[in-house]
Amino acid sequence: MAIRVTVWGENVHERKNKIVAEIYPAGMHAAIADALNNDAGVTASTVTLQDPEHGLTAQKLAETDVLIWWGHAAHGDVADAVVERVCDAVWSGMGAIFLHSAHFAKPFKRLMGSPCNLTWREAGERERIWLTSRNHPIAAGLPDHFELENEEMYGEPFGVPDPMETVFVSWFQGGEVFRSGLTYKRGAGSVFYFRPGHETYPTYHNAHVQRVILNAVKWAYNPAARLAEPSAAPNVPVAEALEPIEERGPRLHHDGEEGFR
Amino acid sequence: MAIRVTVWGENVHERKNKIVAEIYPAGMHAAIADALNNDAGVTASTVTLQDPEHGLTAQKLAETDVLIWWGHAAHGDVADAVVERVCDAVWSGMGAIFLHSAHFAKPFKRLMGSPCNLTWREAGERERIWLTSRNHPIAAGLPDHFELENEEMYGEPFGVPDPMETVFVSWFQGGEVFRSGLTYKRGAGSVFYFRPGHETYPTYHNAHVQRVILNAVKWAYNPAARLAEPSAAPNVPVAEALEPIEERGPRLHHDGEEGFR
Amino acid sequence: MAIRVTVWGENVHERKNKIVAEIYPAGMHAAIADALNNDAGVTASTVTLQDPEHGLTAQKLAETDVLIWWGHAAHGDVADAVVERVCDAVWSGMGAIFLHSAHFAKPFKRLMGSPCNLTWREAGERERIWLTSRNHPIAAGLPDHFELENEEMYGEPFGVPDPMETVFVSWFQGGEVFRSGLTYKRGAGSVFYFRPGHETYPTYHNAHVQRVILNAVKWAYNPAARLAEPSAAPNVPVAEALEPIEERGPRLHHDGEEGFR
Amino acid sequence: MAIRVTVWGENVHERKNKIVAEIYPAGMHAAIADALNNDAGVTASTVTLQDPEHGLTAQKLAETDVLIWWGHAAHGDVADAVVERVCDAVWSGMGAIFLHSAHFAKPFKRLMGSPCNLTWREAGERERIWLTSRNHPIAAGLPDHFELENEEMYGEPFGVPDPMETVFVSWFQGGEVFRSGLTYKRGAGSVFYFRPGHETYPTYHNAHVQRVILNAVKWAYNPAARLAEPSAAPNVPVAEALEPIEERGPRLHHDGEEGFR
Repeated sequence: MAIRVTVWGENVHERKNKIVAEIYPAGMHAAIADALNNDAGVTASTVTLQDPEHGLTAQKLAETDVLIWWGHAAHGDVADAVVERVCDAVWSGMGAIFLHSAHFAKPFKRLMGSPCNLTWREAGERERIWLTSRNHPIAAGLPDHFELENEEMYGEPFGVPDPMETVFVSWFQGGEVFRSGLTYKRGAGSVFYFRPGHETYPTYHNAHVQRVILNAVKWAYNPAARLAEPSAAPNVPVAEALEPIEERGPRLHHDGEEGFR
Repeated sequence: MAIRVTVWGENVHERKNKIVAEIYPAGMHAAIADALNNDAGVTASTVTLQDPEHGLTAQKLAETDVLIWWGHAAHGDVADAVVERVCDAVWSGMGAIFLHSAHFAKPFKRLMGSPCNLTWREAGERERIWLTSRNHPIAAGLPDHFELENEEMYGEPFGVPDPMETVFVSWFQGGEVFRSGLTYKRGAGSVFYFRPGHETYPTYHNAHVQRVILNAVKWAYNPAARLAEPSAAPNVPVAEALEPIEERGPRLHHDGEEGFR
Repeated sequence: MAIRVTVWGENVHERKNKIVAEIYPAGMHAAIADALNNDAGVTASTVTLQDPEHGLTAQKLAETDVLIWWGHAAHGDVADAVVERVCDAVWSGMGAIFLHSAHFAKPFKRLMGSPCNLTWREAGERERIWLTSRNHPIAAGLPDHFELENEEMYGEPFGVPDPMETVFVSWFQGGEVFRSGLTYKRGAGSVFYFRPGHETYPTYHNAHVQRVILNAVKWAYNPAARLAEPSAAPNVPVAEALEPIEERGPRLHHDGEEGFR
Repeated sequence: MAIRVTVWGENVHERKNKIVAEIYPAGMHAAIADALNNDAGVTASTVTLQDPEHGLTAQKLAETDVLIWWGHAAHGDVADAVVERVCDAVWSGMGAIFLHSAHFAKPFKRLMGSPCNLTWREAGERERIWLTSRNHPIAAGLPDHFELENEEMYGEPFGVPDPMETVFVSWFQGGEVFRSGLTYKRGAGSVFYFRPGHETYPTYHNAHVQRVILNAVKWAYNPAARLAEPSAAPNVPVAEALEPIEERGPRLHHDGEEGFR
């Protein structure tokens, strides 16, 4: 069965900015989804900020194996309830890929627990992306480095926790570096951040970038059934302890009671 | 100069429950602070949930090198604005130590980016805490294992990200295990989670537990000046690039402009 | 195409000790391989210490996707040249799974770079293995905990580097704990350590243990072509630099020359 | 009491190459030690490859809190017995800092358990070192980036395990990047790798580089008593189990016996 990908697009620049609209006539989300749909193992659909509940209803998330997120101008417009729902889905086992300016997307900041800040410059400069983890599945089929002739610069220090793995590091023409491909686990879900993708350049038409995203989808996909209650904190009554114990000392709770939250 | 510690106490059980009040007549926070104040290198004060702004004003946080947090019954009563302020302080370099039921405290969940859930049982059973990282500074002066004869059980799976280091793992009489001492970095701040400390047992009077908390304070303390704006994402104008570059291609922003958030 | 697994067995106890021979008449390696061969996606073969080059010729390793290692009494008899060859294969992308007493196997110690020591007791006591990473692929299809009624105890502190992920932690009847399932990356290769498997107990006939090993094989398998020279350190001549540079300052080496080792 | 640092110098280029001798008349090791000795909290001495036992006798290591290693042309001349002794000292709690071409030093490769390879070019090009972990103690007092006008290039992929923390990443004029400052724990010892320091450039006279090394010494120093036997694997007899157990099932070993290695 194919991996079900949902590409979430903010869909603001595409409608307001002529340059972006020319590069991505159907929207950036559509370009990303189209590239993924060339692979027989993936079925990608799109939703946008403007859809009811931003397109991320409980049902849609339940049917999403891997969520891809691109946002920039309207991070603040994303409803907190949807952010919580997305985080819950990740914790229950959904994969999540955050692209470029989604470093400041609410669900990414929520999952990282850190400021996620960086330095930046929009000059159409050259970016060269270096592999730092040989044979990593997210780099399958890619050379040790590839270039994007025009990209926005993102520079260190990047305010994220040290990752599980650093997969890519970028070199910028203007003198900066950036950890461009980072893996994390949050609850039962796998998370990947990938840097490239400024809206005024044709980055998501680049074959190497498309390959990274496809690989990341396969890496983040977990075939296990989603956890029903990823935040449950069940009480284990004394009588059901795995080793025989007797209750001792004073006590605040009753058997099987809900804990405080 | 001494390390300035602020012990944040929820201060609910101590006032409502006779057993807890007998063990900690001045409150759990006071017991924790008193033990720390026996060390010449530390000056510990206390604040509680009931204080204005829960005692965590911007000024108090600015004068806090390491914050210790104990909460249980009233996690939901902590104002979100204070939670954000605490996270900002951690990101700017303040150390933070979360104790026991603070696994579900708002700032801990916010910093972890994960559910932080676990299983639990209140039976006064034996806990044995094992060192898993030899000569770790947080274990200085401690044996390879020590026991708490009566504790609440916390069991795996513990819903936190894989830590930087696992320092302690607990054995429970009823058959469970738990990763009891975990280190993290979030922004410029060091974070330590330490499991023991159920309110109906005299855990914070235990010399080994007191030693772990003192060690953790020293470990989490960073003498560097706090970052003024831990979440700033400054634009680097083309003219100030470290290597000479010329602007190319289309552009969305102006030099020195604020980025989107 | 099926994943090609090679199970390396020390094959000493099975031939010298009646109890072990009765539990594993064809050898422990054969029991492990037989269980794997029940899965259509895996083809497992066995080699032993007594084979020429311990069965691990360059050709055999080239045809091995994942190597499983069990050794105990004869770690010192493994030729250093074979150890280096195994490490090279891991660095080039071969998966490796080390079982139980292989914590002291030469290739495991070589890959970890640490003492890999622990405490131990052979008393046939109960071990309960707890999952610490929900929905981890190595735990697919397994409950949150399972028991082995008779096992050798291994206790913390376990002298290994902090892992990429802690997947399992064990509880022992006699009061110890142990990090029982740990993942690592070394070069292009994925490495998993799994604790259970003392030779005098029927551990490798246990369905849960068999499932963990099968899952670990699938997790450790990397379909990418093996790196030809995993330790190569190529010189990049000035004329081939990706950005135009001119040679400056004094120089020790000539273009394209081999570096020192 | 001052931190006792031993700087190990290969001391080959300094004696054979006029350029290197002019930059470092007393040897690179002496330049590194001299800079450290400007700090009241450190007492640095030097030893070289040419000393008996390369200067690293058991006694010298016992009196060394932090070892700094620079080698390049003569990695292969370092006796394996000394390598094992150094690793044992690290595992017992000695800090270790490996500089530049020591990425291929025997003890570094032994501690990493990986190939430690990279790409390289000797063209005197510009290196810019970026901080990636804000307020990290190893970066105390340093700006977010600093430059070395002439350095040898080292490029990714760098064949080391994912570190505990990435502290610095380098940008190179010729188009490469490199993870330049990496922290590890091995046994009870803290390990730091720092990239800069090609012998034909005056890198160790640079104030920023000197500061990084001084900071790293303080970070790597562990005041705890060294472990007497960092690789010991003690048997815990049944009668001494922390919880009462009875021996069950067959057994291979006798109480208190040495385990196999």
